[in-house]
Amino acid sequence: MHQMHIRRVAIVGASGYSGVELTRLLARHEGVSLTHVFSDTWQGQTTNETLGIEGAVAGLRYQSLSEAMEASGCDFVFLATPVSASLDLVPKLLAGPARVVDLSGAFRFKNASDFKRGYQIDHPHVGLLEHAVYGLTELCRSALRSAQLIANPGCYPTAATLLLAPLFASQLLTLDGVIVNAASGTSGAGRTGDSALSFSEVTGDFRAYKVLQHQHTPEVEQTLAQCAGSPVPVTFTAHLLPVARGILATAYARVRTGVNEKQLFDALQEAYAGSPFVKVLPSPNAVGLKRVVGTNQCHVSVALQTQGLDASRLVAVASIDNLLKGAAGQAVQNFNVANGWPESLALTGGETKGSLT
Amino acid sequence: MHQMHIRRVAIVGASGYSGVELTRLLARHEGVSLTHVFSDTWQGQTTNETLGIEGAVAGLRYQSLSEAMEASGCDFVFLATPVSASLDLVPKLLAGPARVVDLSGAFRFKNASDFKRGYQIDHPHVGLLEHAVYGLTELCRSALRSAQLIANPGCYPTAATLLLAPLFASQLLTLDGVIVNAASGTSGAGRTGDSALSFSEVTGDFRAYKVLQHQHTPEVEQTLAQCAGSPVPVTFTAHLLPVARGILATAYARVRTGVNEKQLFDALQEAYAGSPFVKVLPSPNAVGLKRVVGTNQCHVSVALQTQGLDASRLVAVASIDNLLKGAAGQAVQNFNVANGWPESLALTGGETKGSLT
Amino acid sequence: MHQMHIRRVAIVGASGYSGVELTRLLARHEGVSLTHVFSDTWQGQTTNETLGIEGAVAGLRYQSLSEAMEASGCDFVFLATPVSASLDLVPKLLAGPARVVDLSGAFRFKNASDFKRGYQIDHPHVGLLEHAVYGLTELCRSALRSAQLIANPGCYPTAATLLLAPLFASQLLTLDGVIVNAASGTSGAGRTGDSALSFSEVTGDFRAYKVLQHQHTPEVEQTLAQCAGSPVPVTFTAHLLPVARGILATAYARVRTGVNEKQLFDALQEAYAGSPFVKVLPSPNAVGLKRVVGTNQCHVSVALQTQGLDASRLVAVASIDNLLKGAAGQAVQNFNVANGWPESLALTGGETKGSLT
Amino acid sequence: MHQMHIRRVAIVGASGYSGVELTRLLARHEGVSLTHVFSDTWQGQTTNETLGIEGAVAGLRYQSLSEAMEASGCDFVFLATPVSASLDLVPKLLAGPARVVDLSGAFRFKNASDFKRGYQIDHPHVGLLEHAVYGLTELCRSALRSAQLIANPGCYPTAATLLLAPLFASQLLTLDGVIVNAASGTSGAGRTGDSALSFSEVTGDFRAYKVLQHQHTPEVEQTLAQCAGSPVPVTFTAHLLPVARGILATAYARVRTGVNEKQLFDALQEAYAGSPFVKVLPSPNAVGLKRVVGTNQCHVSVALQTQGLDASRLVAVASIDNLLKGAAGQAVQNFNVANGWPESLALTGGETKGSLT
Repeated sequence: MHQMHIRRVAIVGASGYSGVELTRLLARHEGVSLTHVFSDTWQGQTTNETLGIEGAVAGLRYQSLSEAMEASGCDFVFLATPVSASLDLVPKLLAGPARVVDLSGAFRFKNASDFKRGYQIDHPHVGLLEHAVYGLTELCRSALRSAQLIANPGCYPTAATLLLAPLFASQLLTLDGVIVNAASGTSGAGRTGDSALSFSEVTGDFRAYKVLQHQHTPEVEQTLAQCAGSPVPVTFTAHLLPVARGILATAYARVRTGVNEKQLFDALQEAYAGSPFVKVLPSPNAVGLKRVVGTNQCHVSVALQTQGLDASRLVAVASIDNLLKGAAGQAVQNFNVANGWPESLALTGGETKGSLT
Repeated sequence: MHQMHIRRVAIVGASGYSGVELTRLLARHEGVSLTHVFSDTWQGQTTNETLGIEGAVAGLRYQSLSEAMEASGCDFVFLATPVSASLDLVPKLLAGPARVVDLSGAFRFKNASDFKRGYQIDHPHVGLLEHAVYGLTELCRSALRSAQLIANPGCYPTAATLLLAPLFASQLLTLDGVIVNAASGTSGAGRTGDSALSFSEVTGDFRAYKVLQHQHTPEVEQTLAQCAGSPVPVTFTAHLLPVARGILATAYARVRTGVNEKQLFDALQEAYAGSPFVKVLPSPNAVGLKRVVGTNQCHVSVALQTQGLDASRLVAVASIDNLLKGAAGQAVQNFNVANGWPESLALTGGETKGSLT
Repeated sequence: MHQMHIRRVAIVGASGYSGVELTRLLARHEGVSLTHVFSDTWQGQTTNETLGIEGAVAGLRYQSLSEAMEASGCDFVFLATPVSASLDLVPKLLAGPARVVDLSGAFRFKNASDFKRGYQIDHPHVGLLEHAVYGLTELCRSALRSAQLIANPGCYPTAATLLLAPLFASQLLTLDGVIVNAASGTSGAGRTGDSALSFSEVTGDFRAYKVLQHQHTPEVEQTLAQCAGSPVPVTFTAHLLPVARGILATAYARVRTGVNEKQLFDALQEAYAGSPFVKVLPSPNAVGLKRVVGTNQCHVSVALQTQGLDASRLVAVASIDNLLKGAAGQAVQNFNVANGWPESLALTGGETKGSLT
Repeated sequence: MHQMHIRRVAIVGASGYSGVELTRLLARHEGVSLTHVFSDTWQGQTTNETLGIEGAVAGLRYQSLSEAMEASGCDFVFLATPVSASLDLVPKLLAGPARVVDLSGAFRFKNASDFKRGYQIDHPHVGLLEHAVYGLTELCRSALRSAQLIANPGCYPTAATLLLAPLFASQLLTLDGVIVNAASGTSGAGRTGDSALSFSEVTGDFRAYKVLQHQHTPEVEQTLAQCAGSPVPVTFTAHLLPVARGILATAYARVRTGVNEKQLFDALQEAYAGSPFVKVLPSPNAVGLKRVVGTNQCHVSVALQTQGLDASRLVAVASIDNLLKGAAGQAVQNFNVANGWPESLALTGGETKGSLT
């Protein structure tokens, strides 16, 4: 790539699962000079010691989070931090020249009331919400070019919204409510010491959690409403899967009178014709975790019930790797677009590793 | 138990996963003399050699399926056979004195058209359908007493119907369609040589299968319609979980105007007040596989959305062990009731093993 | 069982995995009145709330560990506590009439130096070591009858010692060192918040830990030396398996000149002829976790290399459920023998659940 | 890479797990033109349809194995076939100009008697054995340059031999026998319909298989004897792990008098100083599957017992991905060396995907 300006980049919260993936992706990114990684857990160690990173940044040492404002000299700062830390850091960083990609839920909402519904606290920087670009890449490429603050979407909302947005945007679905029944691997909960997430507890189990109270519900509703031009009620249920990585979202909605299955596929195909990371598969039965885990891809498909008692009901399925397209991968994809680069930079090569068997 | 008539019992299809569970349960049942086990796979071996069974039937040898009519001299015959074998054997067995518990889908439907919808063949013995008792124990105890043919329910329908039947019977739900999003462990597919069910393929994966085409859809619709007194459209999606045993069903419906969450719980509590194997838990978040796997229990719970864009939507969750309450355990429960015995005979003692950690 | 004196029993440390299994086993034990369960984690809750226990002790509430001396009024106290808590409680409890079964490593050694080698602290109650009975049931039944303090063996030593003790006792093996390569499920590490034991980290992984530094090495050496009448060097390596429960130990040793494979099997068969829980299988290939998990059984087998470069080398394999035969099950087995009762009381019925598929 | 001659390459047996990995690796290899893929299972489909391959070979269609001799026009043919197919194809292919990399066990032995010991048949092409280069890359780079037939090592032998070869070559170990206790993920058994390898059977289990009868024993003995200059008896036990991919080998041997742990590490470090894929880790506790799965790396480490009853015993541990360094990855590594290219071509970039969490 000729005349590519190398960006100076920092990662705050580099030892969590998303932070680790960011480090791996950015360490091998041809347009990146990774200058700082911040993590209290790994403070003082090098990326080679923690992750086996080789090459130019093998010797880069983790710094304390308390030193995170050193990142203000960078061109880009990635925050893989909890909401509270992002709420604190983002305004300070935006006071300088750095552009920020925040992977937390701190700046994803346009309305402070939705934030409060999801996170149970009053938003301390309401004025920043309108300036943040909600970084579901496939829906916001042009806005990303000049974004100073990119709010990287949640993992479940990424899968659910990529699946449903084109169908609502094409006015193919009724507005009387969509159901998203989704399941995630345990890495979605982060690197945690919660004994409920221990191997002994999770293996052999499957259960719903936060039923009717998950913070990702308003996030999905916000984007689908933008696409549909009207409010779209979402009932979202998260389940914990005994796998390390991956999200499968199974969605249910009704089509408007006269809509057929081909129109559904056409809407998806057209929406993602120029998108390297979204693949429309011919049947929901073909959408699974294995082909997407380890990649930045999202697989989607749909089927329409055309006979029986409930014709007009559709079943749509999407799958992603929650740490890549659902977090760090999409963050890098947004970063690429924000720089005017091809959006797959540093994000390909690994696809062939998606299915581990 | 005084004056219990010991029943002579045979199992046909004894080496499949359901057949194995039947053998274990009936071998220790105080009211049973297990006289025949039929399996081509294990022909000539003893139950001690295959399953480590000890005691009276340790030396019982498996016979070829071609000898299955020897079972006609028994009081009860359990068929853990494919639909085709059950269609063949049931009429022959019913010509004699034996009562039959069929674990296949061969005789579960009242209408031959529903059978054809689920299994794509014409039913060869339509006359028998009306005489078969659909053995979802908690809903059919009185009919079981005199039943000559008990059609044991499917695994998914057991979970979904126990969860929803009381809510429809109490007229708490609207009739515009219920969604059942369910996931099963791999043992539900039987002891199979299908490489798609190999450990290499299943571990780390999660996917839907037979989307909009699963044979259990009409089975759930049949029973819910009986409860509701009107047709209930069901959209059912099965998923394959990377666990060996267990089904979790997450259901979505709408309550009728004015119905509140307490009424939903009351309906469930009242329906199962005298049922030793169905437990109503206070939150859907508490319903998981681990507490029910290894037991004949079904756990159910429900939550009602009361605010937001889609108030009136309920989320209900049920879990069972697909091989016990979803197959062999319920078959023994039905057998107990059919004999006028306590329905938990030979089915307790194991509960404390449900959670393996 | 006529004229059985019901024992008043307490469990200290009742919320750990071993404590939970003890609670389940003792709650259904016909000779036990469970009067106290102590756990800070579950203080104030009932056994029904935490474990779904039904019947007489469903309402028994957990008390704080600080109240554990209330257990001194019981006939038996089971300690499922860390070494430090056992070191504190055992002398106090033994001052009263209660007999104690300690599941920790606090009193397993005859020599304080072995304790120090394994646990890196000086033993504070050396005088008690000689009075403790090392409770590997099959090797110490007569001593258990009058034991005041039963030191329940470690999980790995139970598997390794049951496998090798008869071979050393029969003088069939050389004394130049035995290798025990063992692997355990994650429940062996207890109910822990260690993120290294989270599902995300453990699934898909396998590794050795505490290489050459595991505290169970001197424990195995102590018992094998007693059997052999001479010191037996043991090289023991523990590995962490991605399963919840179960231990498989693969051992390597050399036979003395002229010893053949039949003699090895004969020694095992004779040693365990009257032991209901140890089964000698015809081939090491048949020894696995599934058949023993959920039971108090130990499966053992052996094979002797008779040709090639290294004839005289044997490979022996044993499997147990680490929480049952490796902890709580063996504790109850010891308790049964200590009371002069059949050693399988409350420990059978579950075998048929061993293999979950 | 300037002036690289593009090689025309074919893969026979392209739908097995090793064949799939070969296809992925070679499809993105800058020095390869993949011209033929042979598989009866996938005959007629394209690599895009089966594996999602994109780019130049997305449209390449699988041909029947009966057409495999069309590969004779290629520069290189990779055989990911069973022993019987390789025995048939190799002589025919070598009659032409193509160089062959055979992933089966057909040509790994120098002595036909070792082949017969491992595979129970007489070798039909004994004359070819001496010309085959045993392709454990790190030990045979110079021979690979002119090799017409490269016998790619077995998965277990790769891990065990890389771990032990430098220690024997440096004369640090005694010759009285080494024990290799190893465990493999299920993909090592291939894409199989064996119900014993179904998810239902394998999850939660762990067991040894082919005890004292595994065909990889003579393969390890052959190479270690070459390194040591004397016969080295090997006792090897394989175990089946409930993971999809990865091998961990734990080896036990004795050091010669006076040898210390530093000498062991020095021997490993020196042996692999110029090897990009073998990493010597500071402790056996650090060697696990997760860091190597998805990569071509081999991690090794060692610890020496210096006190206690059995000083001089060492414990050494190695881990690899059985399908990459243990099969397809090493095959490509050998191909690179055979062409005089950097040995990591097409094999890097993926390392950072090794640990999936």
